Amino acid sequence: MSNLQTIARRCPVMGQALAVQTAKSSKVGLGGVAALGAIRAFTGKAGSGKAKLHTSRPQEARPLENALFGRDVQHGKPPPQAAHHNAPKFDYEAFYNAELDKKHKDKSYRYFNNINRLAKEFPRAHMSNKAERVTVWCSNDYLGMGRNPQVLKTMHETLDEYGAGAGGTRNISGHNQHAVGLEESIAKLHAKDAALVFTSCYVANDATLATLGSKLPNCVILSDSLNHASMIQGIIHSGAKKMVFKHNDLADLEAKLASLPSDVPKIIAFESVYSMCGSVGPIEGICDLADKYGAITFLDEVHAVGMYGPHGAGVAEHLDYEAHINGRPRGTVMDRVDIITGTLGKAYGCVGGYIAGSTKMVDAVRSLAPGFIFTTSLPPATMAGAKTAIEYQTQYQGDRRLQQLHTRAVKDSLNERDIPVIPNPSHIIPVLVGNAELAKQASDLLLDKHDIYVQSINYPTVPVGQERLRITPTPGHTREFREHLVSAMESVWNELGLKRTSEWAAEGGFIGVGEKDVKEPEPLWTDQQLGVDKVVQEMKAAGPVGVMEAILEQEREDSARAVASAS
Amino acid sequence: MSNLQTIARRCPVMGQALAVQTAKSSKVGLGGVAALGAIRAFTGKAGSGKAKLHTSRPQEARPLENALFGRDVQHGKPPPQAAHHNAPKFDYEAFYNAELDKKHKDKSYRYFNNINRLAKEFPRAHMSNKAERVTVWCSNDYLGMGRNPQVLKTMHETLDEYGAGAGGTRNISGHNQHAVGLEESIAKLHAKDAALVFTSCYVANDATLATLGSKLPNCVILSDSLNHASMIQGIIHSGAKKMVFKHNDLADLEAKLASLPSDVPKIIAFESVYSMCGSVGPIEGICDLADKYGAITFLDEVHAVGMYGPHGAGVAEHLDYEAHINGRPRGTVMDRVDIITGTLGKAYGCVGGYIAGSTKMVDAVRSLAPGFIFTTSLPPATMAGAKTAIEYQTQYQGDRRLQQLHTRAVKDSLNERDIPVIPNPSHIIPVLVGNAELAKQASDLLLDKHDIYVQSINYPTVPVGQERLRITPTPGHTREFREHLVSAMESVWNELGLKRTSEWAAEGGFIGVGEKDVKEPEPLWTDQQLGVDKVVQEMKAAGPVGVMEAILEQEREDSARAVASAS
Repeated sequence: MSNLQTIARRCPVMGQALAVQTAKSSKVGLGGVAALGAIRAFTGKAGSGKAKLHTSRPQEARPLENALFGRDVQHGKPPPQAAHHNAPKFDYEAFYNAELDKKHKDKSYRYFNNINRLAKEFPRAHMSNKAERVTVWCSNDYLGMGRNPQVLKTMHETLDEYGAGAGGTRNISGHNQHAVGLEESIAKLHAKDAALVFTSCYVANDATLATLGSKLPNCVILSDSLNHASMIQGIIHSGAKKMVFKHNDLADLEAKLASLPSDVPKIIAFESVYSMCGSVGPIEGICDLADKYGAITFLDEVHAVGMYGPHGAGVAEHLDYEAHINGRPRGTVMDRVDIITGTLGKAYGCVGGYIAGSTKMVDAVRSLAPGFIFTTSLPPATMAGAKTAIEYQTQYQGDRRLQQLHTRAVKDSLNERDIPVIPNPSHIIPVLVGNAELAKQASDLLLDKHDIYVQSINYPTVPVGQERLRITPTPGHTREFREHLVSAMESVWNELGLKRTSEWAAEGGFIGVGEKDVKEPEPLWTDQQLGVDKVVQEMKAAGPVGVMEAILEQEREDSARAVASAS
Repeated sequence: MSNLQTIARRCPVMGQALAVQTAKSSKVGLGGVAALGAIRAFTGKAGSGKAKLHTSRPQEARPLENALFGRDVQHGKPPPQAAHHNAPKFDYEAFYNAELDKKHKDKSYRYFNNINRLAKEFPRAHMSNKAERVTVWCSNDYLGMGRNPQVLKTMHETLDEYGAGAGGTRNISGHNQHAVGLEESIAKLHAKDAALVFTSCYVANDATLATLGSKLPNCVILSDSLNHASMIQGIIHSGAKKMVFKHNDLADLEAKLASLPSDVPKIIAFESVYSMCGSVGPIEGICDLADKYGAITFLDEVHAVGMYGPHGAGVAEHLDYEAHINGRPRGTVMDRVDIITGTLGKAYGCVGGYIAGSTKMVDAVRSLAPGFIFTTSLPPATMAGAKTAIEYQTQYQGDRRLQQLHTRAVKDSLNERDIPVIPNPSHIIPVLVGNAELAKQASDLLLDKHDIYVQSINYPTVPVGQERLRITPTPGHTREFREHLVSAMESVWNELGLKRTSEWAAEGGFIGVGEKDVKEPEPLWTDQQLGVDKVVQEMKAAGPVGVMEAILEQEREDSARAVASAS
């Protein structure tokens, strides 16, 4: 189908005409015999009434390209050799093998590490051998909510009362008070009218973008160049026109928006925290452009929910910290974002994803998205646990605050040792290696020699040449763990002869590391928001080294004193 | 992109040439400023090395069709009115509203029922009001495994030991002994070399078909006309050529296979039990055709796993009942199927989906499918619970046997009352209504007046005019529940004046109901396999009415005697 035909199918006028034409041409003789049981094939009487909404856009079986096979297959005449049993057949196993060989050769073949995170020894885990302990430094259970006693209590109770699974799709026996309650909590968290839960945020992004992009007439989707695979897939699946703008580049985005007619629907799809480099999207600027050019904003807060903002609603909430802490969401950046997507599987410690936005938008996606409609709901215990996690983090700032302090401490220590942290304002600590094999060796060495698990991040998750270790501190990574990590990194960097920040700098720098014109970005969480502004000033006056560790040490002493005086 | 270009991109020779051309044309000036934090956009140095494997096929941002907007947008010149703030903008809310209005008008708008299935009162549930009890007759928790004590015990223990969530993708800290163990159990269940777990079988079907269909050069996918939405989506997402064959029609499938060159890769995608009508695919015949024409078979056993076969591996296992019960899977129909997909969320009572097949095929999908790679793993407790459920059902036939007996009893009773059951050989009981509004009214009446929950199934799940109630008995639906259901159905059929089987017959019949030439299909589970062959013969000799209820009554008495003599 040509581009023009694709568009024509979505046109309210042309679409109908084409549909009638298609229906006519697809009315063929029906009737077949089931091999098992003698009942007639149920399409027998269905004919043109056959359900088509299963697909995100109408698509009929297309005739094969004659040019491809060089013979007339379009009219159903079997080519002479097709009936021949000894004709050459495709070798599927050889093909799979060749695909795997390619991945082995370019070092992108993935070996999974068997990591069993222990709830009672967080952030420790055991390997396939139960006695072998390691410290996990790359989990997305950023706040340790996966072992939060309140979350676990809710899950145990729900499991006993409502069982292991939902037992159906949301439409057929899989809708319940847990789904209702969870969606209410999510809507409230983001100060939106409605929310919708999916089995994952991969599915939420894919299904929502595919549905809106295919339904909105002539829709154009403007996508940040570093967007996550789930959004990229959703955009492709929508069949909508796609324009990729340079990462976080408002000027490039505006140029692209300005090139489009004002009355054409446009979706700007982007993230708040980009997972693999820790960069942060210019949310307010994008909202301004959306307003100016009549676009809607689709913001993925997957790596930010639970982590930023006074209630953990994400970076959009964090930008108006004071307004939200005072319960005045109207007119804030978060209020201006049209569609927020988030996950229940990272900072909230469970599994699942969601969208939040206007009632009509959510209802439209609920009513039209196959990825939502035709799949079993999340289990009641999962939804109940996620709801508890959201509410817990709405009321308690301690976990995300401590996570930020630990992040700062690790970044400081690595920087002091000339180990190349890719600078960013978020909680992600990407450490540049720049080579697939070396990154894997570094990860293996950390695990085998130092009992530290940090997965290497290779292509296709990051571009070739930008391979890295991605470290994610949690509130559970206390001083002993941090010191162990930093000395292990130092040892690995020496053992493998990995490039230091100063070496990258000598080459002119790379993706923020050792670049002259790149200033260390201000963290999203300010000293004041973390409640450490005074002590940071005092300590910086005394000397620049180890500020964050000193603060954490003092906090620990304060806490110990408080416990002692209370008992 | 034209069809020809799509194909050319997949060609090993042309594909490379096109990729080079694309990479050249996409090299543009880079560099942007992040609004938050002063770091440089990380694409700055990435250029043509930008990861592309995020997508299932290479796809660049395409220039907009000039014809569409009637002006030169391709060269980035903003049209005069685009900069104009008062230019007409698209009204998104009005659009959502219009989409919802369409669904209200054609009666396909869905109202979800709040159903809270109670583990300790299976198959009962409460509504949003906790005191209000209903009996659930449409859950896909076919065997009640959602409340199975062994499953729940495993889940509780795993929750305590390993926490609420996996904390990452399979590649990054989300791989563990639970994933390894579950995949081993699944592979063993289907007597395959390997298996791979996904967040749902919707994702398993979508991701696997999209990946194989897009990677296999010039792949053609032959798809049963009643295939589930997840397969339809996967095929569309693959971009492969699609040929739809008539439901369960081997002749039509063969004609289509014969029209294709023998060396072109072909996937035949079909189901064992079709969920909404209960028909069963001719698996062996399709395997024969696949062998003959060099295709591979992709069999969705979602509604059959746990339910058929001596170990609950599905219909493919059931077809060689004796061989499998004797542990001789080689050469059986199940052995011949290349790819089996199944769910952990229906008969196994949990959530999640999977594929099983050859080691290389599974490894290729593991390595290439974005829907597998870029999403958080299922929680450890879910995987552990599902593994327990599979192993329990591998060893115990009682649940699926009783489920089949209850199914027969309900079908018999409804047929005796001239209530139109769509005939089929499986455990699904579709009752024809034939009108969207009436089907919803029937469902509402059952719920409101009789405290019975059976969801109405309307478009797009079934074609317009084929609306139905879909009843799914479980082992928990004992005689009192069955009698209550049948009398309630009788009352609803009278109150709404719904068509009886005899009335459909008077009109010549419809989709199997009241059709003269349609013989009641033999159930997949034979009398002998159910262990009721002798008693059925005796009772049928005595009189045709109520045979199954009499058998179940006798079983109950036997069971009571056994309990009494044991105590």
